[in-house]
Amino acid sequence: MFAFAPSPRVRPSPFYEAIVADGVKGFTVYNHMCLPVGFGDPAAEYDRLMNGVSLWDVAAERQVEIQGPDAARIVQTLSARDMSKCAIGQGKYTPMCNRDGILVNDPIVLKLADDHFWVSIADSDVKLMAEGIAYGQNLNVKVCEPDVSPLALQGPKAVEVVAHVVGDWVRDLKYFWFRETEIDGIPVVVQRSGWSKQGGFEVYLRDGSKGTQLYNIFNEAGKAWGIGPGNPNNMERIESGLVSVGTDTDDTTNPFEVRLEKFVNLDIDADVIGLDALRRIHAEGPKRHTLGVVFDDNKESEFANASFYADVRWQSASRNGKPVGHVTATTPSIRMGKIIGFALVNRADANIGDSIEVTNGRGEVSQATLVDIPFV
Amino acid sequence: MFAFAPSPRVRPSPFYEAIVADGVKGFTVYNHMCLPVGFGDPAAEYDRLMNGVSLWDVAAERQVEIQGPDAARIVQTLSARDMSKCAIGQGKYTPMCNRDGILVNDPIVLKLADDHFWVSIADSDVKLMAEGIAYGQNLNVKVCEPDVSPLALQGPKAVEVVAHVVGDWVRDLKYFWFRETEIDGIPVVVQRSGWSKQGGFEVYLRDGSKGTQLYNIFNEAGKAWGIGPGNPNNMERIESGLVSVGTDTDDTTNPFEVRLEKFVNLDIDADVIGLDALRRIHAEGPKRHTLGVVFDDNKESEFANASFYADVRWQSASRNGKPVGHVTATTPSIRMGKIIGFALVNRADANIGDSIEVTNGRGEVSQATLVDIPFV
Repeated sequence: MFAFAPSPRVRPSPFYEAIVADGVKGFTVYNHMCLPVGFGDPAAEYDRLMNGVSLWDVAAERQVEIQGPDAARIVQTLSARDMSKCAIGQGKYTPMCNRDGILVNDPIVLKLADDHFWVSIADSDVKLMAEGIAYGQNLNVKVCEPDVSPLALQGPKAVEVVAHVVGDWVRDLKYFWFRETEIDGIPVVVQRSGWSKQGGFEVYLRDGSKGTQLYNIFNEAGKAWGIGPGNPNNMERIESGLVSVGTDTDDTTNPFEVRLEKFVNLDIDADVIGLDALRRIHAEGPKRHTLGVVFDDNKESEFANASFYADVRWQSASRNGKPVGHVTATTPSIRMGKIIGFALVNRADANIGDSIEVTNGRGEVSQATLVDIPFV
Repeated sequence: MFAFAPSPRVRPSPFYEAIVADGVKGFTVYNHMCLPVGFGDPAAEYDRLMNGVSLWDVAAERQVEIQGPDAARIVQTLSARDMSKCAIGQGKYTPMCNRDGILVNDPIVLKLADDHFWVSIADSDVKLMAEGIAYGQNLNVKVCEPDVSPLALQGPKAVEVVAHVVGDWVRDLKYFWFRETEIDGIPVVVQRSGWSKQGGFEVYLRDGSKGTQLYNIFNEAGKAWGIGPGNPNNMERIESGLVSVGTDTDDTTNPFEVRLEKFVNLDIDADVIGLDALRRIHAEGPKRHTLGVVFDDNKESEFANASFYADVRWQSASRNGKPVGHVTATTPSIRMGKIIGFALVNRADANIGDSIEVTNGRGEVSQATLVDIPFV
């Protein structure tokens, strides 16, 4: 483990002072902002997410605000998913690709008005791609990063805390739908959303000067349900089969290879960056697929380090000595009682049920089995 | 200070194993890659840079490779500087802006051939802006991030080490000019360059599997000149007046405000993103300027923490109680014997010689004086 400090270029979030007070121990960087990765008690953090309610500073999920007469047009150009049916107040998860059909982001697009969208991004500067398209096509649209910072409540009891603070109407919000409102005078958007499969909400703070205040409102209200700090949880997301763009993908990965085919619409009748390439890739058949991997042996040392990612680079996967792809992420799994992970492997060479050998960065070889996703 | 670990999404560089062996203590993240920030002895690291030779893993200065019949056209569209006179084998430092004339990057563009460029970027995804423009204008150009990772040798003795390894011809390289060559069979580009004012070279590794080998070649060869590890040095860059885009700029900063006017050509006769806005800003007169700031009192504690950035956010600057802008970066300065920094302040309210009050993130107020840049 190494030392790290926030700075104006790798920005602390509006919730930074609050999470420091709550005992944050480590960070990663996501969209040029500090994203917490642990609070010192991985078992308790996992348990809160699975059985209670966990409070996450996910301000690093920055928004790209797109506004103006051509806003809907450019949002569709960026999106490999048909956005024409997206209603005001609705969010849609969508893959975004480059001209070659390579995944560059997988945001949730929020439609605030017919000419006003937020693109709630994974870790790449979608803002710059939107600027480039708007310039190249001379579109009438403003692109900016607004003062908007999501705070997530995740876990089965999240709905109780959010309903207590915001009102019982949140119980009726459908997944990814949202509403603009205020909490003690603080402007927010409340959305049923979040980067886990345990249910919950994201509360988009619209005034960065109120981060500590908003954090403390939920932290206080949540005490009755045992709330505590957390962050996007590597163990839970792998168990649940959630892809992390940039972790499980690289500059050669298309959406079909990471199980996102159901979010790609090949028949969109509009300008879409990468659509021609996606049609070609689909017609030819994607060469790789993402499967689960379960390691045959457990390593106690890996369980002990559950709070951080297991390896610094993709691990090599081979079958009967032949390279078949990579293991992109691994984690000890409390629910499985095993070390598990994701494998991005050649369809022709590696499928569910096959045994593979995985070589980690230290040259150690482990036996593992390919399985379906999600694990649980 | 917090904990940090590399992962596939915040990638270790090809020199990672070598710098771990050399005692790296901390990282920041730059272009989705780990950039070292210290090796445990800030005074020695500064001294090597000023008086000897320092070896830097700056692989996080990623390249955007632009290739094809429209390559020169899109490079000019991205650049606020006239690139028409750039020769093959030459590099040019250029501001890049969005449609509003706001600085989004300040790379060095390297022209490898008439239809082949590298854009050696600061910390934002220029690749995605290039993709957007290429899509929007239907340009015939390939954009990618190639397997290219700069290793820098900086300091007055850098030329001796590089000449010893590569050959005496490097002594004749002009600033930002480069040549493609090999070192023990490893393909590299050698450029007179580097993110300090102490002179030196960047050796662009073109085979990421050879990072440790290349690092060790220079580390061994440099022993006669007292080489040791280092990284872009906050103290030296502030003393020398080097802007850091993303640190000293935000989403409202144009090139004129951060002393880059000499790199902006308003009379370019070509498509350039942001050129109209830059002409308007220039005609109206930029509202802010960047000045040096010298604090009246030294704080011993700040000298003790010289290896990391001094504050997590911009500090507020006021004059006679009126807000005038921000202090964007500070450092203890060994050469000045003072705490110094950069101030981005209103031209109408704050100029060289003025006294200002600076309020840091802990609410502490310091008196300081505005001065010209560079400091030394």
